[in-house]
Amino acid sequence: MLEKVDLTKRMEKDEYKEKMEMLEVRIGQLQRQCKELKIPVILVFEGFGASGKGLQIGHLIQSMDPRGFQVYPIKNETEEERMHPFLWRFWTKTPERGRIAIFDGSWYRRVLIDRFEKRTKNKDLPAAFHSICAFEEQLAADGNVIIKLFLDIDKKEQKRRFDKLAKNKETAWRVTQGDLERNARYAEYAAMMEDMLFKTDTEYAPWTIIEATDRRFATVKVYTTVIKAMADQIEKVQRQKLEEHAAKEAGTGENTEASEVAREADQNMRKMQVSILSKADLSLKYTREEYRERLKKLQKKMEKLHGELYRRRIPVVLGFEGWDAGGKGGAIKRLTEKMDPRGYVVNPTASPNDIEKAHHYLWRFWRAMPKDGHVAIFDRTWYGRVMVERIEGFCTKGEWQRAYKEINDMEKDLYDAGAVVVKFWMHIDKDEQKRRFTERQENPEKRWKITDEDWRNREKWDLYEDAVNEMLLRTSTDYAPWVVVEGNDKYYARIKVLETVVNAIEDRIKK
Amino acid sequence: MLEKVDLTKRMEKDEYKEKMEMLEVRIGQLQRQCKELKIPVILVFEGFGASGKGLQIGHLIQSMDPRGFQVYPIKNETEEERMHPFLWRFWTKTPERGRIAIFDGSWYRRVLIDRFEKRTKNKDLPAAFHSICAFEEQLAADGNVIIKLFLDIDKKEQKRRFDKLAKNKETAWRVTQGDLERNARYAEYAAMMEDMLFKTDTEYAPWTIIEATDRRFATVKVYTTVIKAMADQIEKVQRQKLEEHAAKEAGTGENTEASEVAREADQNMRKMQVSILSKADLSLKYTREEYRERLKKLQKKMEKLHGELYRRRIPVVLGFEGWDAGGKGGAIKRLTEKMDPRGYVVNPTASPNDIEKAHHYLWRFWRAMPKDGHVAIFDRTWYGRVMVERIEGFCTKGEWQRAYKEINDMEKDLYDAGAVVVKFWMHIDKDEQKRRFTERQENPEKRWKITDEDWRNREKWDLYEDAVNEMLLRTSTDYAPWVVVEGNDKYYARIKVLETVVNAIEDRIKK
Repeated sequence: MLEKVDLTKRMEKDEYKEKMEMLEVRIGQLQRQCKELKIPVILVFEGFGASGKGLQIGHLIQSMDPRGFQVYPIKNETEEERMHPFLWRFWTKTPERGRIAIFDGSWYRRVLIDRFEKRTKNKDLPAAFHSICAFEEQLAADGNVIIKLFLDIDKKEQKRRFDKLAKNKETAWRVTQGDLERNARYAEYAAMMEDMLFKTDTEYAPWTIIEATDRRFATVKVYTTVIKAMADQIEKVQRQKLEEHAAKEAGTGENTEASEVAREADQNMRKMQVSILSKADLSLKYTREEYRERLKKLQKKMEKLHGELYRRRIPVVLGFEGWDAGGKGGAIKRLTEKMDPRGYVVNPTASPNDIEKAHHYLWRFWRAMPKDGHVAIFDRTWYGRVMVERIEGFCTKGEWQRAYKEINDMEKDLYDAGAVVVKFWMHIDKDEQKRRFTERQENPEKRWKITDEDWRNREKWDLYEDAVNEMLLRTSTDYAPWVVVEGNDKYYARIKVLETVVNAIEDRIKK
Repeated sequence: MLEKVDLTKRMEKDEYKEKMEMLEVRIGQLQRQCKELKIPVILVFEGFGASGKGLQIGHLIQSMDPRGFQVYPIKNETEEERMHPFLWRFWTKTPERGRIAIFDGSWYRRVLIDRFEKRTKNKDLPAAFHSICAFEEQLAADGNVIIKLFLDIDKKEQKRRFDKLAKNKETAWRVTQGDLERNARYAEYAAMMEDMLFKTDTEYAPWTIIEATDRRFATVKVYTTVIKAMADQIEKVQRQKLEEHAAKEAGTGENTEASEVAREADQNMRKMQVSILSKADLSLKYTREEYRERLKKLQKKMEKLHGELYRRRIPVVLGFEGWDAGGKGGAIKRLTEKMDPRGYVVNPTASPNDIEKAHHYLWRFWRAMPKDGHVAIFDRTWYGRVMVERIEGFCTKGEWQRAYKEINDMEKDLYDAGAVVVKFWMHIDKDEQKRRFTERQENPEKRWKITDEDWRNREKWDLYEDAVNEMLLRTSTDYAPWVVVEGNDKYYARIKVLETVVNAIEDRIKK
C-alpha cells in the first residue's frame, strides 16, 4: 500500500481554513449523535516517528466535547501490563457505548516496533496478527466504529524533522536512539509497516493512509476520514432502527410460516445432537473416609503447586459453571482452602452493572484476568452469553452464535500468554437439584442461598440442557478444555475438581 | 502498647473447634447483614513478618461469601503507583458500600517498612501520620467500619519461623534478606511499630493487637474482633434508621420553633459574611488585539512548560468551577490548545454513576489524579459536594460541613506528592449569564449546551452565591489556592487562566 502513496500532496492556507471551519463543526455534531445513538468509536493513530500523530490528535480533540473522549498514549508496557495477556491493556481501554477512545500508538506496536526490536519473535507473528484481527472483529461486531489512520512520511522528511527537534534544546529529548535507528533502517521498518497494513486492512476495520508531509493536508484528511466513518455508522444504526420499527409494525414475525419451519428444523437438529451431559455417570461417589484422605493429600499438593506457579509466573484461569445448587461454591471452597489468599481471587459473576452493560460483554472478564503467577477463579463466567443471555433473550441470536468463536479466541489469547485455562461444568440431575433446593429452604443458615429466580430457572431445565450441550461441544478446546464434573455426590465432585486442577498445573510445569 | 502484650497465650484444640464452629457461621451472617445495610468494611492486617497474616486472611475468607470481599496484598509500589500520590493506590481500593476490602499490609507500610529502610525520611513522618489519620477519619465518617489488626510475635518466635521456612526448599524463597535484617534489628523495628500504634490508634479506627504465637488463639481473636466491629456498626446503623423513622413520625421538624431560630441565625450570619465574589471587578477586559497577542505568547509558553513538566515529573491538578455559561469550556480549550494530548486529560464531572455513588464521594476524583509529569484538568470538581450536593440536599449538613476539611486534606496530599494545584472560579454576573443562555438557545450549533436544568439552577443564584463564598473562604490555601476569574469578558478570563497556570508552573519549577 505504501509505495503508491503520493507524499507530495499539499494544501494552501486559504483552502485549509475554509475547509476546517466546516469540518470542526461537523465533528462536534457527529460526536453528539454517536453519544445519543450509543455508538462507541475507536480511533487508532499509527505511522512513522515524527509524522505528527500527537499534533493531529491534539487538533482533533479541540473540536470534541471533552466529556466524550479519552486519549490513550501507548508506550512501553508497564510491569503490570507485562504480567498480563497482551490484549489485556487494550481490552480494558475499549470505550463505553457513545464514547470515543483515541489511541496514540496501539496494539499494532506488537507487530511494528516490537517486531523491529525483536521483542516479538517471527514465529509469534501469525498468532499476533490473528489475535489483532479477532479483537477488532469482535469490537466491530459489537457496534464499534474502528478508524485506523496511518501517518506516512518518507525517510528524508523524517530525518529533517528529527534534526529540527534535536537542534532545539527544549525538544531534543523527544528524539530517542530508537527513532534514529528506525530512520537509518527506514526501508526495513517500512517493509514491516507494509506487511502489517496488508494483513490487517479488513472490511470491519480498514486502514486509511494519511499523507503527512504537509500538515494542513494531513489534518483535513484526518478530519474527513473520521467524519466519513462516523457518519456511515450513524446512518447504518438509524436504518437498522427504522427496519426494526417497520418489522414490528408488520407483525411480530413470530407466527409466520417460515419461522414455523425454522423452529421445526431446530427441534429436529436438537434430537440429532450429541448430548454430552447425558453421558455423565452421576452414580460416582466417594465414602467420607476416601474423601477426607484424598482431600487432605490434594489440598497439600495444591498449596505446594500454588507457590510453584507463583515462582514460575504461570497464570491460571478457572471457570465454574453448572446447574443452580450444582456445588460450585463448595468445590471452590475446597480448592482454595489451603491456598495463599494473596495469590488467588474468586470473581463472582452477577448480572452486569451499568458500566459493564455499556461495554462489550467480554470487557469485564478481561479486566479480571490474572497477572502472571496468580490464579483467577470465576464463579459463573463469560459463558453466560450462550446460556442465560441466550435463553432469556438478553442478546440476539446473532450475538450468542458469534460468541462461541469470540470466547474461543479469548481463551486462546490467554493460553498464548502462558495461562492454564480449565472450565468446569458442575453437573447434577433434576431430582438432586430439587432435593438441594428444598434442603436450602428448610435450613435457616442456607435460606439466603435460594431465590425465586432459582425456581424459575429450574422450569427451563430443557432449554438450558440444549444450550449447555452446544456450548460444551463448541468451546471445549485443547488449550481450554471443559470438564464435566459428576456432581450428585459432593465428595466426588470436589475431589474431581481438585484433581483436575492439580493435574493441569503439573502438566504445564512439566512442559 | 506492645510491651504489655502476653505472647504466651494459647488455646487447646477442643476449645478452638467449639468456638470456631459458631464464629464461622456468625461471620457469614454479619457479612450478609452488612451487604443489606450497605455498610463498607475495611480490614487491615499488619504485624511482624511470619506472624501469620496470610494464613489468618486465608482462614477468614473461607467463612465469607466470595461475592462480597476482595483481598489486596500490598507490596512494593509498582512504577504506576510510584508516580501517583501515596494514598492513590489505597483510595482506589476502598470498598463499595456493602463490600469488604481486606488489606494484607497497607498504607502503614510508609511508616513501618519504608521508614525502617529509610525510604520514608524522618522529616516526612508527621505528614505521613497526618495523612493516614485523615484518610481513615474520612472513610469512617462515610460509614466504613475500619478494623485494624496487628499480629504480634517476639524476636525468638520470628527467628524460629524464618528458620523453618528457610530449611524447606519449597518455602525458602519466602524469607527475604529484608526479613532477616528486621529480625536481627527486632527491637529497633518494634519501636517503630510501637510509635505507629501510638499515633494511629483512634476512636474511629482503633488497633487490636493479636497475640500470634499460638495460631489457634490468634484465629479466634481475629474472628472475634472482626465480628464485634461489624456487629457494633450494624447495630449503630439500625438504631439510626429507627431514629430517623421516629423523627419522621413525630413530624418533619421543619416548623419547630428551634429550627426557626436556627434559620434566622443563619440568615444573620449570611449578612455578616465576607463576600469574596462581590469584590471581583467584572469590567476588566481586553481588546481583540490584546487578546490575540497575549494568547499566542502564553500558549507558546504553556507548550514549552508542558514539556518541562514532563521531564521534571511534576504533576499538575487544575480544577474549574463557575457559574453555568461562565466560560469554563472556552478557557480549558485555550489552555490546552497547544498542549501535547499525550500529557493531559480533561475530566468532565457529571453526576456520579452507580459505582461512583457506592463509594466515598472523593473516590472517583482520586482515581483520576494525574501521574507525575501529567496534567489533570477537572471540568467541575469535588467541590460539587459543597455546592450542588449541599443546595439540592444530596448530602446531609454534617456531610458537606465536614467536606471542607476533607477536601483540604486531599489537596494537601496532592501538594505533598509534588503537585501544582490550582482551582478556578469562573465568575460572571447574573445579567451576563442571561445573555449567554439566550444566545445559546438561539444558536442551533450551541443549543445542545443549554438545558432546563441550567435555567432551574439560575433561580437558585443566591443560594449558590452563599455556598461559593463559604467554599472560597474555607478552601483557599497556600498549597491549593482559589483564583476568582473575572469572566464577563471572555478574552480577559481566558488570558487570566492561562497566565495563572503559567505562573504557578514557573514558580514550582524555580523552587
